[in-house]
Amino acid sequence: MKTRDRILHTSLLLFNAEGEPNTTTVDIAHEMDISPGNLYYHFKGKDVIIAELFLQYESSIGEILEAPVDQSLKLEDNWFYLYVVFEEIYNYRFFYRNLTDLIERYPALGKRFRRILDLKVSAIKAVLASLSQDGELSAGEEERLVLVDNVVLLLTYWLNYQDLRGEKMEPALLIHRGVLQILTMAAPYLGDQQLDFYHQCQEMYGAMAVS
Amino acid sequence: MKTRDRILHTSLLLFNAEGEPNTTTVDIAHEMDISPGNLYYHFKGKDVIIAELFLQYESSIGEILEAPVDQSLKLEDNWFYLYVVFEEIYNYRFFYRNLTDLIERYPALGKRFRRILDLKVSAIKAVLASLSQDGELSAGEEERLVLVDNVVLLLTYWLNYQDLRGEKMEPALLIHRGVLQILTMAAPYLGDQQLDFYHQCQEMYGAMAVS
Repeated sequence: MKTRDRILHTSLLLFNAEGEPNTTTVDIAHEMDISPGNLYYHFKGKDVIIAELFLQYESSIGEILEAPVDQSLKLEDNWFYLYVVFEEIYNYRFFYRNLTDLIERYPALGKRFRRILDLKVSAIKAVLASLSQDGELSAGEEERLVLVDNVVLLLTYWLNYQDLRGEKMEPALLIHRGVLQILTMAAPYLGDQQLDFYHQCQEMYGAMAVS
Repeated sequence: MKTRDRILHTSLLLFNAEGEPNTTTVDIAHEMDISPGNLYYHFKGKDVIIAELFLQYESSIGEILEAPVDQSLKLEDNWFYLYVVFEEIYNYRFFYRNLTDLIERYPALGKRFRRILDLKVSAIKAVLASLSQDGELSAGEEERLVLVDNVVLLLTYWLNYQDLRGEKMEPALLIHRGVLQILTMAAPYLGDQQLDFYHQCQEMYGAMAVS
């Protein structure tokens, strides 16, 4: 790996593990066993590293959100899709942890982050509309609008919420439980066939299965 | 009002309006037209002001959360109850805006904030259990557990989410819409009588009514 990429990789690891406000460029250089001067040669400050990591995140989550499950009516596919979206958020979770603060320090981030939110809204809208059109989801248009916000809000804050509550669990379980939270919002509107899969997931990842 | 109370009152206003990280004790003194020395006589720093405001919040939200609607089966009462909880959160919204950051800077806050979350969880659990016991809510125990987390997460992050999306609206409407988001999660499990009221609210505060 090139030094530049290694810096980005290490920064992301440290930001996620220690929190971005608690990580300096000196910490990053130290972790990599390179001199702060060498790091400075590649990035002229932490803000440049953050901007670059955001570009990476924007590009990878954008790709996922712009290609939602194509008209799939199978709940398995939607589960998997949500899992992938969540995983991407998890990989860049430091952005979400201090969101208000980060956006205030780097205002350019705010607008672009809002665009990602808009993409999330569109993706979830598309999934629900397609299920609904095919009679697999009985929610009306107004309910679907409210549902979309509930889903996007959960995607955005689930990791923070679990942190806050002091829940410790493996990343994969954390994400599966997040998907279960989302699917539970849609569950009452699903047909019997879809519900079968939902109940299987409930048994595997639900609060009662876990605790 | 005593100077001490005026300082707290002004701090809360400024923290909510400008953000806590952007507000110094000098700003607070300036806004009140008193000398920084006079402010210092009452509070030996911003952290002491924040701690005192948190005590206020803890006490007022605690009172509300520990006295949930007493076995009321009327959706109106639950709507009103959630509105009151939300309003209290709104009054101290600066705590929620930079939550991760605040807790890192003032670790004592973290534990106490978690206790408030636990109270929220218990209050919502109680409401759902009572509705369920009386056959007014058809959700099973597992669904209710998931529902509780979804509701508490929404209570905690709804204001941040609207900020982030750049939505501007009157506080009362913002809160009513938050309550609608919550009730929409429960709606599919409610009986016809309860749904009547829900649909009225949907017409008044729903996305389609508003946009």
